[in-house]
Amino acid sequence: MKLTEDQKKEIKDQQTNNFQTKRVTSEELEKILYEALPVLDHGFVRVVDYMGDDSSIVQSARVSYGKGTKKVSSDEGLIKYLMRHWHSTPFEMCEIKYHVKLPIFIARQWIRHRTANVNEYSARYSILDKEFYIPNKDQLSAQSKSNRQGRGDLITGDQADEVLKILKDDATRTYDNYEKMLNERYDGSIIDEGKMGVARELARMNLTLNSYTQWYWKTDLLNLLNFLFLRADTHAQYEIRVYAETMLETVKKWVPITHAAFLDYRVGAVHVSAKGKKVIQQMAKGENVTHEKSNLSKREWNELMISFGFNEKIV
Amino acid sequence: MKLTEDQKKEIKDQQTNNFQTKRVTSEELEKILYEALPVLDHGFVRVVDYMGDDSSIVQSARVSYGKGTKKVSSDEGLIKYLMRHWHSTPFEMCEIKYHVKLPIFIARQWIRHRTANVNEYSARYSILDKEFYIPNKDQLSAQSKSNRQGRGDLITGDQADEVLKILKDDATRTYDNYEKMLNERYDGSIIDEGKMGVARELARMNLTLNSYTQWYWKTDLLNLLNFLFLRADTHAQYEIRVYAETMLETVKKWVPITHAAFLDYRVGAVHVSAKGKKVIQQMAKGENVTHEKSNLSKREWNELMISFGFNEKIV
Amino acid sequence: MKLTEDQKKEIKDQQTNNFQTKRVTSEELEKILYEALPVLDHGFVRVVDYMGDDSSIVQSARVSYGKGTKKVSSDEGLIKYLMRHWHSTPFEMCEIKYHVKLPIFIARQWIRHRTANVNEYSARYSILDKEFYIPNKDQLSAQSKSNRQGRGDLITGDQADEVLKILKDDATRTYDNYEKMLNERYDGSIIDEGKMGVARELARMNLTLNSYTQWYWKTDLLNLLNFLFLRADTHAQYEIRVYAETMLETVKKWVPITHAAFLDYRVGAVHVSAKGKKVIQQMAKGENVTHEKSNLSKREWNELMISFGFNEKIV
Amino acid sequence: MKLTEDQKKEIKDQQTNNFQTKRVTSEELEKILYEALPVLDHGFVRVVDYMGDDSSIVQSARVSYGKGTKKVSSDEGLIKYLMRHWHSTPFEMCEIKYHVKLPIFIARQWIRHRTANVNEYSARYSILDKEFYIPNKDQLSAQSKSNRQGRGDLITGDQADEVLKILKDDATRTYDNYEKMLNERYDGSIIDEGKMGVARELARMNLTLNSYTQWYWKTDLLNLLNFLFLRADTHAQYEIRVYAETMLETVKKWVPITHAAFLDYRVGAVHVSAKGKKVIQQMAKGENVTHEKSNLSKREWNELMISFGFNEKIV
Repeated sequence: MKLTEDQKKEIKDQQTNNFQTKRVTSEELEKILYEALPVLDHGFVRVVDYMGDDSSIVQSARVSYGKGTKKVSSDEGLIKYLMRHWHSTPFEMCEIKYHVKLPIFIARQWIRHRTANVNEYSARYSILDKEFYIPNKDQLSAQSKSNRQGRGDLITGDQADEVLKILKDDATRTYDNYEKMLNERYDGSIIDEGKMGVARELARMNLTLNSYTQWYWKTDLLNLLNFLFLRADTHAQYEIRVYAETMLETVKKWVPITHAAFLDYRVGAVHVSAKGKKVIQQMAKGENVTHEKSNLSKREWNELMISFGFNEKIV
Repeated sequence: MKLTEDQKKEIKDQQTNNFQTKRVTSEELEKILYEALPVLDHGFVRVVDYMGDDSSIVQSARVSYGKGTKKVSSDEGLIKYLMRHWHSTPFEMCEIKYHVKLPIFIARQWIRHRTANVNEYSARYSILDKEFYIPNKDQLSAQSKSNRQGRGDLITGDQADEVLKILKDDATRTYDNYEKMLNERYDGSIIDEGKMGVARELARMNLTLNSYTQWYWKTDLLNLLNFLFLRADTHAQYEIRVYAETMLETVKKWVPITHAAFLDYRVGAVHVSAKGKKVIQQMAKGENVTHEKSNLSKREWNELMISFGFNEKIV
Repeated sequence: MKLTEDQKKEIKDQQTNNFQTKRVTSEELEKILYEALPVLDHGFVRVVDYMGDDSSIVQSARVSYGKGTKKVSSDEGLIKYLMRHWHSTPFEMCEIKYHVKLPIFIARQWIRHRTANVNEYSARYSILDKEFYIPNKDQLSAQSKSNRQGRGDLITGDQADEVLKILKDDATRTYDNYEKMLNERYDGSIIDEGKMGVARELARMNLTLNSYTQWYWKTDLLNLLNFLFLRADTHAQYEIRVYAETMLETVKKWVPITHAAFLDYRVGAVHVSAKGKKVIQQMAKGENVTHEKSNLSKREWNELMISFGFNEKIV
Repeated sequence: MKLTEDQKKEIKDQQTNNFQTKRVTSEELEKILYEALPVLDHGFVRVVDYMGDDSSIVQSARVSYGKGTKKVSSDEGLIKYLMRHWHSTPFEMCEIKYHVKLPIFIARQWIRHRTANVNEYSARYSILDKEFYIPNKDQLSAQSKSNRQGRGDLITGDQADEVLKILKDDATRTYDNYEKMLNERYDGSIIDEGKMGVARELARMNLTLNSYTQWYWKTDLLNLLNFLFLRADTHAQYEIRVYAETMLETVKKWVPITHAAFLDYRVGAVHVSAKGKKVIQQMAKGENVTHEKSNLSKREWNELMISFGFNEKIV
């Protein structure tokens, strides 16, 4: 992540803001407000605004006139209860806004979460930054053999070098040709005064999907948690997971009680099907359970065993 | 609107909040934060939280690192441009939360605006306040003869007294019977220690639709403006319009530039159909235009003439 | 449920529709299309249109050109996989539209599910039917002592008669006064030719919350299942649960494979928190687990034991 | 657009479907159901399912038991009234599902319309087709000088050839390298049996933004019209406008009355601001109006004059 001097100065300026407000305020989140938290090689996540804190959830759940808070212990109990029983609407009462810089192929996954507000940098209007995502060697994995949409073993040695060279060369060449078609460099300088530049909305089509874009992304706490549940999960693609993990840390600073409940009732939780429940019931009674008698497919059986850390995985 | 002493104290407590924040802050809105702005006989609107101001719209539209602000005049130009050209997403970047007390039949209209977050006081869980909306005499109108969903002339004299008596008596009697079925008064006191009370989720069905309920209602600025465009309009039912008008005043304090653009490009604007456009074109050329030659239905013709304040209305 | 002769005829007419279509068609659902399935004393649910079937889910998940179907067995496997792994978007590719008649206090719960399209009968425009929900005696329950938003023991004897009398009398009286204020009866006849009637949008406020309303309600399969998960659940209020149960039967006719997967992975499933998972792990290993050592609150402990049908419930 | 023989056969198979249904059916739309309507060089739009027709809008607006239809003329009047007065919910009662093949940079614009259901071909899971969008020469425009996000004059001669060569070469090379990294060709054949292929979710990042993707896209009529209003407009980028125009033709076949009302009250309509209204009023009275006296910015003045086809444009 390389910020220009101008960008650094703009961020510094924001961080010197010092306003007085009657609104509830999250002290811990204020400490990192506006800061560019680095993700991947050129990306970042910045919290640029927020509304509410843990007490806002309690206040709404109680539809109270004031703080909605009796004491911290009962607030915590209520938030845990709401999370456990899927009472979702009170968590919609907090809102957060991020400024994110991310590769386009990740932006395309991310945008599928529709219940958010987005303003993306427009390549119809402006020239994109000359920055592409190139994976670290420890992330350069082969296609998984067991999982049709996952990664398998690391690719190493000459093949790794070759792949990285391809990614760099192709991104660089297509970007150079993007500038050539635009007849304009990323810094705004004209290449050939005697020529017209191709319309930006056309020239951008030559860029590769690892080019970086950026957007303002705003959502409520409920939908943020749904996003993080899916994207901070081990099954999520690494390149979006690192964004989700960084954002999960900002949630911890912002609404610590909700964050703890989220880890207990969502992230660390297990969802057991009706058939799986019978297996667990038998195991708890000390009965001998086998896949054959379980009525589960092999795949489901293994998913169940893995989720509880049992050894009875079969092949 | 009668707030209890406890409620008044809770509100006062909130108003003494004095936190420091790096977030953008709306000075004018801070002045009325938490205040119960009276609407109808027992209702109110309270702004209880907000996020962003006019500069947040500019910041998002520019996807800038800092304030997104060059100077106030160019910010104003950009906001007007966005409003005029229906570039809606930047207006989603501001958020506001209201606490509202309102009659149930109005709540049922209001909730049809789906793009908001809502937590309503639960009559499955708690006892509703003993408060009903009774119209002022200057709002006691007859059914309109020309508009199947509007009001006509005022009802006056004995008939007015009779109507108001019906509304008061029926609301009071059904509420008294609500308490009787619950075996509990609205202040929590038990009526007959020897009896069970009917479940709250059942007993509530005896209440009339002018009973007051309350909720926390949170939405972004774009959807708020859409709500206000429809509900602050002269065609909206009076009882919801007065809420919308009160909220429009809070928008003026919060985002004054956006408020002005909203009045110019939405509230005071006219939408002219393709056929209507031809009529206007002919009038501007000084041609004599009549309904007969206009290709418009009588109703459309009149709507067009009224919207421009022309005298050519026909019957 | 009393349908007028006109309404019966209109429904009969629709049921004689016989069009040819290239669209996928659900034979079982066609058999009950337009039929008024009775719910409560005067309510009903009618399926009035639908789009897609189980094969549409498969088609979308595979983004295939044709049916997306290889054979029924692999379709079933894919649908189960999608349901188990919360791959939700393919289930959004089916759509259904209901015509529902229901009491207003239930309509207010129902409308909180925002991801649906709704057109409600307008009491600003028309006069509501003279029908109110009066519970059966076997549903006339007292407030639960353990659950602040649930029902407890049945109310019987004189008190039951008294409650039912209140509900009937108050609904009838407020309706009669509604007609009186309107100066018009529900059949459209004028009461007193010398008087004006109060505007419909005002007079309706005198009605009680057990008055029946009706609407067209349209949603996709994913959001329908989310609705049914919450409202066909034992914790849902009886008066909405009976609607959900009727609708669940229509889902079974429409998309039988999805319906079976829904029962297995949602309705009959158990969600176990991170802490609860440890308890289950210990039980499966034959270890002695007690509430004291579990790190769970008493309430959570009991919820866990009940969900697996274990006997270790404590008080 | 080149469909494989298999794809052609699958489509043909669907078109031989012949089911009987009681659902309302659009005869004209049935005629083109499943057909691949070509757009751009390799793209297409296919209507693969639909629900409802013009009569469904009327039925919902009236919340009627049967067809909701009195006669065609009154249906037409009602639909026009609803459109004119922004009564939007009845238009949500029709639903349509498309299968679309389109360049990724257009998919990124399209997906910003959030109120639709989408299943996109997954490049984490499968290999993308070897097809890229290359503009026709008559679409190869320079950046507009007056409009920062539009196109200006055509680029011709050698420069045009050079640009097209760049686009073809870069797309081809990056695709070839994509295959090389995957160690697999688009037809599924392995390139080097001795090597592992890079994970698909990584290799895809090397593709250029003019690569074609495809998806199932489903939405209701209201949101479809909002999409078409923005994207069939002359200000929309050509490459998305041609999709919108093709879809607008399918709307005409599906719901002809709504289509006509949409052209009159939306596509051909003019929105006049409060200030603009004063100018029109003066012109209609034969008063001499100039930009100086108008209180409008130069830009607004010109937009107003253009929208009515008046000659008073200034520079």
